[in-house]
Amino acid sequence: MEIREATDEDWAKIWPFFAEIVAAGETYAYDRDISNERAKATWMAPPPAHTVVAVDGSTVLGTAKTGANHMGPASHIATASFMVAPGARGRGVGRALGEHVLALSRADGFRAMQFNAVVETNTAAVSLWQSLGFEIMTTLPEAFHHPAKGYVGLHIMYRKL
Amino acid sequence: MEIREATDEDWAKIWPFFAEIVAAGETYAYDRDISNERAKATWMAPPPAHTVVAVDGSTVLGTAKTGANHMGPASHIATASFMVAPGARGRGVGRALGEHVLALSRADGFRAMQFNAVVETNTAAVSLWQSLGFEIMTTLPEAFHHPAKGYVGLHIMYRKL
Repeated sequence: MEIREATDEDWAKIWPFFAEIVAAGETYAYDRDISNERAKATWMAPPPAHTVVAVDGSTVLGTAKTGANHMGPASHIATASFMVAPGARGRGVGRALGEHVLALSRADGFRAMQFNAVVETNTAAVSLWQSLGFEIMTTLPEAFHHPAKGYVGLHIMYRKL
Repeated sequence: MEIREATDEDWAKIWPFFAEIVAAGETYAYDRDISNERAKATWMAPPPAHTVVAVDGSTVLGTAKTGANHMGPASHIATASFMVAPGARGRGVGRALGEHVLALSRADGFRAMQFNAVVETNTAAVSLWQSLGFEIMTTLPEAFHHPAKGYVGLHIMYRKL
């Protein structure tokens, strides 16, 4: 597995699992029927933000994007989002992307990283981020409407870099 | 004082105090030297979001914008931002805008309102939101760089509607 900056050509391999994950409506606060065009504009962040892919040869296993969470006097706090292709789960792709993004953010001079909306029922993600040093700062009650579990909480997670 | 939806023509009266407040760098996580054009695009939110102004005759005393905080399965939580012209402080403009925005969000079917970045040293705002039923859910440490006070916390504030 190699992690590198995503190129425009990678989008065609990201979109199928991006669409599947977002359509499932269990983990992302994006419109479940988001268009390919809008998804690309959302995910393929221009510099100084980064969009990266984890690849195995010509296969894209997962992707992450990271950049400033706010602007101006709060622009020293990064945020990030992650997606792993369903067929590539259980291979440590999420962890490798998380470690990569933390290193990138440190190199870019950020002082902390904040996740704004980690669905509390997405326990695999919550555990992974905790193992990478993130703390649950608060849980916003009933802030996410899960298709099977109804209204569930959204964690704000944070760690210094 | 009347509060109404902002029109494109109002922007010329919002921009002077918007620029002053943002340039001060004490309360907003926007670039302190934000351009007029970018500020307008940021603040004058297209429907279904709202941008409102509090006016006294032809004078704009303050403004607020409100809309969904996230998309898709989290689009039932609103957020909002407020600015009161420095010359109009102490007249209850912020409170009137806050009450108006809460009513608008209820009418639009939102279930809660979340503020993502309330600077902890902006005690007038913190007290106002608490008096309107918001709770400090967490304080992200050192998440805002205040020009005089250095790194201070950002509150996440939340209330059900």
